[in-house]
Amino acid sequence: MNTLEEVNDFVHNGHQEYLPHISIDPVIFGYHQQQLKILLLKWKGLEGWGLPGGFIKRREPLSQAANRILQEKTSLSNLYLQQFHVFGDSPYRIRERSAREYKEKFNLDVDDDNWLLQRTLSIGYFALVDYSKVTVQTDFFTEDYQWWDVKEVPPLLFDQNEVVEKALLTLRRQIYHQPIGYNLLPEKFTLPEIHTLYETILGKELDQRNFAKKLIALGLIQKLNETRAIGAHRSPFLYQFEKENYEQALQVGIVHTY
Amino acid sequence: MNTLEEVNDFVHNGHQEYLPHISIDPVIFGYHQQQLKILLLKWKGLEGWGLPGGFIKRREPLSQAANRILQEKTSLSNLYLQQFHVFGDSPYRIRERSAREYKEKFNLDVDDDNWLLQRTLSIGYFALVDYSKVTVQTDFFTEDYQWWDVKEVPPLLFDQNEVVEKALLTLRRQIYHQPIGYNLLPEKFTLPEIHTLYETILGKELDQRNFAKKLIALGLIQKLNETRAIGAHRSPFLYQFEKENYEQALQVGIVHTY
Repeated sequence: MNTLEEVNDFVHNGHQEYLPHISIDPVIFGYHQQQLKILLLKWKGLEGWGLPGGFIKRREPLSQAANRILQEKTSLSNLYLQQFHVFGDSPYRIRERSAREYKEKFNLDVDDDNWLLQRTLSIGYFALVDYSKVTVQTDFFTEDYQWWDVKEVPPLLFDQNEVVEKALLTLRRQIYHQPIGYNLLPEKFTLPEIHTLYETILGKELDQRNFAKKLIALGLIQKLNETRAIGAHRSPFLYQFEKENYEQALQVGIVHTY
Repeated sequence: MNTLEEVNDFVHNGHQEYLPHISIDPVIFGYHQQQLKILLLKWKGLEGWGLPGGFIKRREPLSQAANRILQEKTSLSNLYLQQFHVFGDSPYRIRERSAREYKEKFNLDVDDDNWLLQRTLSIGYFALVDYSKVTVQTDFFTEDYQWWDVKEVPPLLFDQNEVVEKALLTLRRQIYHQPIGYNLLPEKFTLPEIHTLYETILGKELDQRNFAKKLIALGLIQKLNETRAIGAHRSPFLYQFEKENYEQALQVGIVHTY
């Protein structure tokens, strides 16, 4: 969608191509060098920042829709997007008001019963990437993008601050039963590197010694007979993921003992 | 909804009261005496069993809709229903076909573009109750109910076997980061009782000694200075939940060490 004519068609006839009442809102977390950020877009005509969301085509599988929307809005593709929650408790009034503002800003002639002005539930997805490795490109509806530190998320459109908070909570809980890091760390990494990754995502300190022992006991990482010189007297040992155990833990979850 | 007239009105005008394209499907797990079951309904006019699902009113908060639907279909109320997944990858063809069958069975004059025949995403919720303590009553659309052992779930309507499997997987994962048992065990219970509860839900054996040690170490249960005579030479100690820690763990999750 690149011209005003196409936007007009979307506003007036989009409900024939897309399911009304349901949107998809991806929360893309980016980790790099001790920072955890989220990707936000500046939507044209709207005040403030928002998630790269969109609608599901009438015959499109849900997970495929999530990936298509993200790609259209940001050019990011092949991410492992994970569904985490449907938001539908209170947002509809806010959505309606903002949609009306949108209509005024774009100066489109839209009826009150237009499909974009109706109550819309939002299905939240999230992904975790190394943001230094991705290139973002916005589409017609959005004029800018920015990676925001999760500790400094600005006021977002609709109920999207709640969506972001819930995504972060889910990611933090999940770290206890799913491995992470494979695409976020170098192939061979030091214990401080993986320790910092976990601390940054969890937003709290972890005992370094117990942390490493646990990951090794779980069979997720293994110590190599190699070191990396990072200073005159500092050559920490390197570690790597145990690919097979890592993949298995992704499938069935990390088994904590009870 | 109790008469054919009301059903007719629902079929033809329901989309004015309810959001189209989205249903809610609650999976109610029931635990009692070493058995884990799920509640299934026999829907009138449809072959096979199904979940007690329904639609969201146009101005109704999502979580409120889930509780209302469950109460209408089964008379169960005040359950802690937990949303766990939206199903929308492939079910729409199956739903359409079954909806047509439904229409033939009820002999209602329905157009192909009727709202009930269109693609419908399903939002899954689950709850865990003591099934010996609840009374189920069906509504006009359903003619029977039954608690089925989770190991013997029959072929269900639409894609609902997938919904049940995912609910069970979610419940089993969640047991590692949320406490359970408060409404499923007597106020004072033996270690074998809580051990069996966990084994039944997880569907696998757990080391009894480590299991108890872990629950005590987490501060979730405490040993009482009381025993219960269950045989000539068997008087195991009783335990109870540490209410405050239990409630806190429900809020923030069980904190496993890393």
